[in-house]
Amino acid sequence: MTITVQEALSSSPWADQPRPTTAAGWLDRAAEVAGILAVDAVERDRAQAVPAAEVQLLKDAGLVTLLGPVEHGGAGQTWETAYQIIREIASGDGSIGQLIGYHYLWAWAVRLVGTPDQIAAVEELYTTQNFFFGGAVNPRDNDLTITEDGDELVYNGRKSFSTGSKISDLTVLEGVLEGTEKHIFAIVPTQQEGIVFLDDWDNLGQRLTESGGVTITDVRIPWAAAAGYVDKEPVELTYGTLNLPTIQLVFANFYLGIAKGGLKAGTAYAREKTRAWPYGGDDKETAGEEWYLLEGYGRLQSQLWAAEALADDAGREIAVLLHADREALTPEQRGHAAVRIAAVKQLATDVSLEVGTKIFELTGARASSNAVGLDIFWRNARTHTLHDPVAYKRREVGEYALLNKIPEPTWYT
Amino acid sequence: MTITVQEALSSSPWADQPRPTTAAGWLDRAAEVAGILAVDAVERDRAQAVPAAEVQLLKDAGLVTLLGPVEHGGAGQTWETAYQIIREIASGDGSIGQLIGYHYLWAWAVRLVGTPDQIAAVEELYTTQNFFFGGAVNPRDNDLTITEDGDELVYNGRKSFSTGSKISDLTVLEGVLEGTEKHIFAIVPTQQEGIVFLDDWDNLGQRLTESGGVTITDVRIPWAAAAGYVDKEPVELTYGTLNLPTIQLVFANFYLGIAKGGLKAGTAYAREKTRAWPYGGDDKETAGEEWYLLEGYGRLQSQLWAAEALADDAGREIAVLLHADREALTPEQRGHAAVRIAAVKQLATDVSLEVGTKIFELTGARASSNAVGLDIFWRNARTHTLHDPVAYKRREVGEYALLNKIPEPTWYT
Amino acid sequence: MTITVQEALSSSPWADQPRPTTAAGWLDRAAEVAGILAVDAVERDRAQAVPAAEVQLLKDAGLVTLLGPVEHGGAGQTWETAYQIIREIASGDGSIGQLIGYHYLWAWAVRLVGTPDQIAAVEELYTTQNFFFGGAVNPRDNDLTITEDGDELVYNGRKSFSTGSKISDLTVLEGVLEGTEKHIFAIVPTQQEGIVFLDDWDNLGQRLTESGGVTITDVRIPWAAAAGYVDKEPVELTYGTLNLPTIQLVFANFYLGIAKGGLKAGTAYAREKTRAWPYGGDDKETAGEEWYLLEGYGRLQSQLWAAEALADDAGREIAVLLHADREALTPEQRGHAAVRIAAVKQLATDVSLEVGTKIFELTGARASSNAVGLDIFWRNARTHTLHDPVAYKRREVGEYALLNKIPEPTWYT
Amino acid sequence: MTITVQEALSSSPWADQPRPTTAAGWLDRAAEVAGILAVDAVERDRAQAVPAAEVQLLKDAGLVTLLGPVEHGGAGQTWETAYQIIREIASGDGSIGQLIGYHYLWAWAVRLVGTPDQIAAVEELYTTQNFFFGGAVNPRDNDLTITEDGDELVYNGRKSFSTGSKISDLTVLEGVLEGTEKHIFAIVPTQQEGIVFLDDWDNLGQRLTESGGVTITDVRIPWAAAAGYVDKEPVELTYGTLNLPTIQLVFANFYLGIAKGGLKAGTAYAREKTRAWPYGGDDKETAGEEWYLLEGYGRLQSQLWAAEALADDAGREIAVLLHADREALTPEQRGHAAVRIAAVKQLATDVSLEVGTKIFELTGARASSNAVGLDIFWRNARTHTLHDPVAYKRREVGEYALLNKIPEPTWYT
Repeated sequence: MTITVQEALSSSPWADQPRPTTAAGWLDRAAEVAGILAVDAVERDRAQAVPAAEVQLLKDAGLVTLLGPVEHGGAGQTWETAYQIIREIASGDGSIGQLIGYHYLWAWAVRLVGTPDQIAAVEELYTTQNFFFGGAVNPRDNDLTITEDGDELVYNGRKSFSTGSKISDLTVLEGVLEGTEKHIFAIVPTQQEGIVFLDDWDNLGQRLTESGGVTITDVRIPWAAAAGYVDKEPVELTYGTLNLPTIQLVFANFYLGIAKGGLKAGTAYAREKTRAWPYGGDDKETAGEEWYLLEGYGRLQSQLWAAEALADDAGREIAVLLHADREALTPEQRGHAAVRIAAVKQLATDVSLEVGTKIFELTGARASSNAVGLDIFWRNARTHTLHDPVAYKRREVGEYALLNKIPEPTWYT
Repeated sequence: MTITVQEALSSSPWADQPRPTTAAGWLDRAAEVAGILAVDAVERDRAQAVPAAEVQLLKDAGLVTLLGPVEHGGAGQTWETAYQIIREIASGDGSIGQLIGYHYLWAWAVRLVGTPDQIAAVEELYTTQNFFFGGAVNPRDNDLTITEDGDELVYNGRKSFSTGSKISDLTVLEGVLEGTEKHIFAIVPTQQEGIVFLDDWDNLGQRLTESGGVTITDVRIPWAAAAGYVDKEPVELTYGTLNLPTIQLVFANFYLGIAKGGLKAGTAYAREKTRAWPYGGDDKETAGEEWYLLEGYGRLQSQLWAAEALADDAGREIAVLLHADREALTPEQRGHAAVRIAAVKQLATDVSLEVGTKIFELTGARASSNAVGLDIFWRNARTHTLHDPVAYKRREVGEYALLNKIPEPTWYT
Repeated sequence: MTITVQEALSSSPWADQPRPTTAAGWLDRAAEVAGILAVDAVERDRAQAVPAAEVQLLKDAGLVTLLGPVEHGGAGQTWETAYQIIREIASGDGSIGQLIGYHYLWAWAVRLVGTPDQIAAVEELYTTQNFFFGGAVNPRDNDLTITEDGDELVYNGRKSFSTGSKISDLTVLEGVLEGTEKHIFAIVPTQQEGIVFLDDWDNLGQRLTESGGVTITDVRIPWAAAAGYVDKEPVELTYGTLNLPTIQLVFANFYLGIAKGGLKAGTAYAREKTRAWPYGGDDKETAGEEWYLLEGYGRLQSQLWAAEALADDAGREIAVLLHADREALTPEQRGHAAVRIAAVKQLATDVSLEVGTKIFELTGARASSNAVGLDIFWRNARTHTLHDPVAYKRREVGEYALLNKIPEPTWYT
Repeated sequence: MTITVQEALSSSPWADQPRPTTAAGWLDRAAEVAGILAVDAVERDRAQAVPAAEVQLLKDAGLVTLLGPVEHGGAGQTWETAYQIIREIASGDGSIGQLIGYHYLWAWAVRLVGTPDQIAAVEELYTTQNFFFGGAVNPRDNDLTITEDGDELVYNGRKSFSTGSKISDLTVLEGVLEGTEKHIFAIVPTQQEGIVFLDDWDNLGQRLTESGGVTITDVRIPWAAAAGYVDKEPVELTYGTLNLPTIQLVFANFYLGIAKGGLKAGTAYAREKTRAWPYGGDDKETAGEEWYLLEGYGRLQSQLWAAEALADDAGREIAVLLHADREALTPEQRGHAAVRIAAVKQLATDVSLEVGTKIFELTGARASSNAVGLDIFWRNARTHTLHDPVAYKRREVGEYALLNKIPEPTWYT
């Protein structure tokens, strides 16, 4: 489908189709969405409008409730598939790949830290309503402060990054209860007076992710909705520490999607427009005979395949843990998965930056024209791969290889 | 088990054990063999004796008939498992990993080009007898010449490389029938007057592979044993062109095994002997606190995992083709598998050389002592990765990525 | 000096100073100019106004007549110094580094192909008038057509790229005389009706170079001004083939300048704003204790120094040829210089792209904010390094190393 | 000259020639020596005999007294030239390049730490006698112990590495005076009962450097010969801390020589023996048409040139300091030179390993035969580049680039 996002919304391409019922079917659906997103990704990136249409497209395609329970209308798919869908969406538009990936994590947050009742309630709510999640929990900022007011908790404060923000229906908050060390997560409706987005996300890439700051003023939840608290005390599971490896593999998958998108755009341009170089070596009539183009694309494609293969392995590994009994998870299992994901993260970082830079050499001088917009891949990859230092990911894998040590769970990586 | 090959042969470690029945069980068995091989791999490499004991160990462990039919006493496993076993064996001893890998290919040669009757006969023969294969078919030499003598074909000529040679029970020959363009493969007993090995394999690495030259003088087979010929005419299947991708993935897997062995040796040395550097940066008491060691091993381990993941994917893909109906294979299926394997080959080449060189930096100056013997990994990797130019593998993948072209089957890569 | 270009123009910082008389003095002057350009390089790049002020600054600083004869008020410096000045200027602003570099080449064009009389006339003209050169001779377009009209030559046609264009005083044209194979260069006043700039340079980087297209309509020169023609026939010297290596080393030097500017910006940011990473490894209080930052900058700085050292060597080598007797130059001398420059070009390409990408990892996530504008270095490097395929430069050096072959002079690389 | 070392010794090739009087002349002389060494470098490396003939060749060629005073028959050349000669010699034989390099440092040791009288005496001694230096001062071992016995100092102990050892005429010792913190250097005749070499240097590469251990038993010097001591108290100069950067640049230059030798051997083999690859791409008749060979050699040659250019720059910089007034040197000057040399070291390490590995890919499978011996370059480079961790060199340059910090002088790097 070579229709734009707006055209797709008007024509409701999936309205008359049966919903996919298999992982393969959902991947095909994601590929259709990616194809639509790719058509005007550069233009939409430049306009940097609130990506309401894009999120609506994800909803229409059924992807927002991919992990939701079947009984409430969700697709009931696994994280293994979710990761591949994130990658596929990102191959069409890196920003939207990030949005759907973060959404899956926030939608799963209640499973990570909530009680069984809370899980049941949140999953029913978001699945039946086809709700999209945002979040404001970046741990390098100060925590929000929480005060008690009778049976309610009141959140206040400010966060620098709140991916999803404006186009979300629900927002995940995190704060610390005044006078305690208790971190408390809450899921609240995004549309409310006390949540004000600052519209200050003006970065090099991933421009449509609405990742700007937010102020939280007197946002209230009942104590009963404090995720994972029973009688005002936390119930802590090792399972909750899966949050970091889970989101890190989300990152890696949209980096890989960006790389895939870049490779697709580069080869398409080279096939259609790149001219053979008139000097040096054998007579060549087309760019397809240029050794350096063939070798160059071969190198990038091979690197990408390898990183994807490892990402798929790691996705299978952590999916097993995420879908198993929450009580059963051991720190060793968590640690092993985290190390493998740390490895994927490095390779995805490397290949996405490499593709983002090299496709220019493998297309030619005229591809640097802004009319082509080939820089979107480097900008997107470069921006989010800075989330946390990749050098520390190498170090983590090294600690495992050399010292047989698994990473300590932290709040950030 | 930290016993040497000789000790293992004497003690028959698997004599009283039930044979494995699953892929996982066979991989454990291979890991035991690899552990034994690793104990004195450096010493055996330097002595460069005919690896008769090593091959006997493979036979005793049941690995030689891994792909053989269950009804004749084989393990009836798939190529997916065979590839992982090659890698595992090579992690203990790169030469022996090459030998078992080539053996699997030669043992499968009759399936690639033979008639159903020939397949049945050869598989029964080698499986019941626990026979080991060698071959003398390097296509960069001249072909052997074949002359007809009544109902027999007579092979003559010389080949520069015949991996396995002396320690094989059966040898695969290939020649061209005089006055025709007919290439004819034959499987003959190795022990016969007309087959003389030249003992001239003196190379940098993979020193125990018996890859020297051979002269073939009046070696006879009945016409009926001419692989794939019916009434003296060839029956050609696309299936036969799987030979190259199948062996190329054999290569890649023993390269990965060499890398794995190198990483294991490097980290073991670093843990036990490397001292913290006395200058610069923070106080460090042990090598395990050195950032550069952690980051360095982390980088290598991550690269290795990714290449292994892609190798496993490619192994699954080609195993499906190798074990399916021979008539059904299409050139497109073959081509797609070949491209993926071309990608694996590159990454396995890169990571095995990188590990072979970098483990020195990640152990320290004293590790360059010949008493340590850490150079075996670089020597082994460097030697066989030259089999055919890796640059052409990048080009093949590039033709696929850029031009959607699949590789033409050739006799060599 | 932390004043902007506009402030510098108003305050005429060099009006009361004696002109430099040594290479070192001119380099100091260039460093002052670079410092001024760096202050608002990002803002000026975004505004993409015609760089009239910037060129005026170069004129005021005396840099435009650096190579001009002393007797006409020029500085009489050598190309060795000119190259270092290009690099220095580019460290402040990549676009302006390109402009001054192209200017030096165009100003030298009359020496490359002109007659002694033409040389004398053009050098007096541009030096006394402090004129700035542009050019419209990109050889991958069709040549301009030239027709004869009595004693005049009339140029017509269109060129896709004309670096300098609007802000130049003189423009170098190149065309082919109708019905012949004669290529004829001419130097004409830029301000004339027949030269219309298309204002269509909208590229990723080097945005202030005014490198858009131009149409040439009936632009006339007297036959006597046809560069290098005597009695309407060309006088050809090997010396003229120095054009390509000379400009290629111009390129390499402004790439190196871009790298230097990027490293300066990255380290400044890291010193002032980057925070130590809160997890993993030893306690660190400042970013300056982070091993990965130190090692990362150390790697980039080392690569840059090496590329600069080779650039300086190559600059000395070609300067000797450029300033020697024009008649004496041999193809071997030209070829040797060209090969060395091909090597510089590769290294300058690699290091400028590497710096452009890595400085982000060596500053941190917040440096991807557009308020910082750190992407200007990657954009500038990525854009012009596409001028001609760097793979062919490696090939050229390889032909020299392997086959002892020197590059054939061409019109483009 | 394609004569072996033994043939050269017999024929005394320089006996009838005037001694060179310029740096260029000495470099030509070194190139002749390198040519002789290269003829049978592989064979001599394998035999690993004491390199007496090789050192005699250096003496005959006049290279041993290159830095010696003209008045005593030395060539009176500078360190700038010495470094280039080390590199040149190492291009013929890495071991001998190391020997001459260490010799230059030991011959200069008396200038680094001695008194004017001691300098005069030692320089006269070694220059008039054409003496070769060895040393046993590796600081990662325990220091030798020194006891006072009247007017004499008595050295005892053991050192793990004593490059030069057996083939030296003079040996530099270092120890600590019992009951003090005084480090005292001494220069003693190698041939004496108390100095016993252990003949235990059996390493991967640099096999002819006689770098094994040594025991020192009651080796005596007069107090007056304690280098740099006046009235039994040390006279300390910043100049003495030049020892480390001086030797580090020695290292870098013989690494570069090894790379140069490898590139020479690789291209020679490829020109003479490598065949064009029969599949893929255009018809090629010779290896010289293979794009991957041309690009591969081009890349290596370019990297090597850049590292050499930086080495030459650094050589000029430190030579100025080494030949200037000893009292005048400031820590800042020393530090700046040390940082530049730290950069050279990295690049020389990288390029020598890269060449050592890649030349195999750029020659082909048969080049892995031990009859070719192409592995000598990787072995030599790999062995000595482990001397101290190159990661710390990157860190040093990073501290300079990021923090404007110069390296603290240490005893080792």
